[in-house]
Amino acid sequence: MPVISLMTDFGIKDGNVGVMKGVIWGICPAAQISDLSHMIQPQNILEASYIFARSVPYFPKGSIHVVVVDPGVGTTRRPMAAQIGDWFYVGPDNGTITGLLERAQRDAWKTAFVELNVKNYWLGTISHVFHGRDIFSPVAAHLANGVPLADLGTTFDEPVRLALPKPEKTQRGWRGEVIHIDHFGSASTNIRTEDLGDALREKQTITIRLNGREIRGMVNTFGDRPVGELIALIGSTGNLGIAVVNGSAVQMLGTKVGDAVEVFSEDNPR
Amino acid sequence: MPVISLMTDFGIKDGNVGVMKGVIWGICPAAQISDLSHMIQPQNILEASYIFARSVPYFPKGSIHVVVVDPGVGTTRRPMAAQIGDWFYVGPDNGTITGLLERAQRDAWKTAFVELNVKNYWLGTISHVFHGRDIFSPVAAHLANGVPLADLGTTFDEPVRLALPKPEKTQRGWRGEVIHIDHFGSASTNIRTEDLGDALREKQTITIRLNGREIRGMVNTFGDRPVGELIALIGSTGNLGIAVVNGSAVQMLGTKVGDAVEVFSEDNPR
Amino acid sequence: MPVISLMTDFGIKDGNVGVMKGVIWGICPAAQISDLSHMIQPQNILEASYIFARSVPYFPKGSIHVVVVDPGVGTTRRPMAAQIGDWFYVGPDNGTITGLLERAQRDAWKTAFVELNVKNYWLGTISHVFHGRDIFSPVAAHLANGVPLADLGTTFDEPVRLALPKPEKTQRGWRGEVIHIDHFGSASTNIRTEDLGDALREKQTITIRLNGREIRGMVNTFGDRPVGELIALIGSTGNLGIAVVNGSAVQMLGTKVGDAVEVFSEDNPR
Repeated sequence: MPVISLMTDFGIKDGNVGVMKGVIWGICPAAQISDLSHMIQPQNILEASYIFARSVPYFPKGSIHVVVVDPGVGTTRRPMAAQIGDWFYVGPDNGTITGLLERAQRDAWKTAFVELNVKNYWLGTISHVFHGRDIFSPVAAHLANGVPLADLGTTFDEPVRLALPKPEKTQRGWRGEVIHIDHFGSASTNIRTEDLGDALREKQTITIRLNGREIRGMVNTFGDRPVGELIALIGSTGNLGIAVVNGSAVQMLGTKVGDAVEVFSEDNPR
Repeated sequence: MPVISLMTDFGIKDGNVGVMKGVIWGICPAAQISDLSHMIQPQNILEASYIFARSVPYFPKGSIHVVVVDPGVGTTRRPMAAQIGDWFYVGPDNGTITGLLERAQRDAWKTAFVELNVKNYWLGTISHVFHGRDIFSPVAAHLANGVPLADLGTTFDEPVRLALPKPEKTQRGWRGEVIHIDHFGSASTNIRTEDLGDALREKQTITIRLNGREIRGMVNTFGDRPVGELIALIGSTGNLGIAVVNGSAVQMLGTKVGDAVEVFSEDNPR
Repeated sequence: MPVISLMTDFGIKDGNVGVMKGVIWGICPAAQISDLSHMIQPQNILEASYIFARSVPYFPKGSIHVVVVDPGVGTTRRPMAAQIGDWFYVGPDNGTITGLLERAQRDAWKTAFVELNVKNYWLGTISHVFHGRDIFSPVAAHLANGVPLADLGTTFDEPVRLALPKPEKTQRGWRGEVIHIDHFGSASTNIRTEDLGDALREKQTITIRLNGREIRGMVNTFGDRPVGELIALIGSTGNLGIAVVNGSAVQMLGTKVGDAVEVFSEDNPR
């Protein structure tokens, strides 16, 4: 059974996501459909890109991922489908796939990009404002039915890419920033476990600075410290995170996306 | 695989929607189930009717749509199932289907209405307060299994209808009202693309008045104007909408359901 | 088609629930997956236990229920799977199953408990912080594929149990407490229809006291009283509930979980 995921900024109250499933099942009745998120901050492609990159690799090979965070709907922005490694993307060409493309380059995955322009694979009537329903859902369903990527439109080479914020090496460690705040109020940063390297191996000698607070040492998991304590740890997809045990870093520190984070080892010269 | 959609005012935190799916799959294991919305404002049948009417036609023929916005649960209000065109409704006879029935009349679709009273198709124990679980979900699952509509109960002719607010023709154009506010804070009105007719064809000569503000001309889509600008456009199901580009009309104007909207063409005599 | 339900405190915005479905379908492509709730109050095992106990019995026999409200993730708390009557549980051994176990004892259902330690049934890499994805989802999928419970780990006898609050018999009736507040702002208490017995049969002679207010008599359902009236009734799974017709008991009374509730019959001696 083909697997499709949906991610949008549509919210969950207006029926629009449910309608996309109706359209998909009208074309591919056996599709399994997972809601990845419909609470992406409106028009926040960067947030969508982050969740997309960390989530897709957990899905089965061949699965198809529709993302509709699409402030340019109905303008000249390109509708697209892509193969990235073992997975497919369907949505606007607006940078949503940037994070996963970086991994594709690092790991030498196959990629292919197609501008959607074969209207046989779309609904019969196309609105100016809801391509998630009229173009992307039917295209995803046809892909799920086995239509080859190349049949959906015209191949192109360079999809739009976002300028993802990168951590910088400092004399004493790394400087990065908060890139996501989760439901619990925990922060994820763009500093990754690979960056920390040796420092991480000596977890107790590392210091993390965020919002004017310093955290000495890292822990493996929440239950390693008492309730209410501010901790630093590696999150489930390898990013340095800051959290409060059974609490909220946002509430304690006022942390928000974009806030600077510094990591340094006491071993290193100041 | 049969397709069922669910719409309720139950919210998503108490497990009640999940239980309805458990009941359905106990009877019809292959059903595909789409959540249309569970965030209908409590007891707001009018809102449910609007989302129902605009969403159902995007679902496959034969699909079954359970709506439980049901302040009369357990009283003498009639539990019902209906065929409306190519689709089925299961839920209380409280007007939820009014909007889709209007379209059925306009387009001469077949309709049939049945009062549910054959308890073989219900759960064994019926609570006074959760017919969504005890009656409507099992009935929908039996319909999905191929039980004929007529076997579920007794045919009747006149389902309850809501008095849906209608736009009025004015000397200069139309006067209508806001009938829905979406997740983005955009407003949908009951003035439709068919009403606007010629005026729409000359989009730049039309003026829309709402909450004391006037919008000159209509656009096709959000990206046609700069971020933060107030716009008028035709929404994805043909209703005149008012929005702010990458923003919220609710925040800018304080718009709410029921607010008056006027549309007039400068060509027309004042 | 095997049925799996998911309940977590993860919220719905970060993609984590969607990823669990991706993992499950990678192992068991035909699984039907119902979201029971992802809005459990963070770390509130008691709330999860209540919803779990009242929801699971409505699911098909053989269905598998994953619950991840797991403040102890990555510590020494035991990962487990269980058979409880006709259903299976997969999640941490932290008391989530207490409510359903009480029913199992009362009704002499079969139970079996297994500590998960056969890593063949887990993902290849296990994070310290997301066992819902790395352990519980794959284990549930393998169970759904027919792997016997006993193959997943080592049998044990005594799972962790919560001290669920119990109602007390008083001279005049019962004293209990509020154990859940639902989406509508209605309260469920731990006093059950079985407790009320004769008093319930004479509904009009019973008085319910909560937050300093007294409600005389019980009703069958919401529509039995005018809009805005405070009512007491038996909820859909047999617990005494307090609600406001088309309104919110929380808003009217400030009711919260843990508040004392008293029920007494005027017939009984004071």
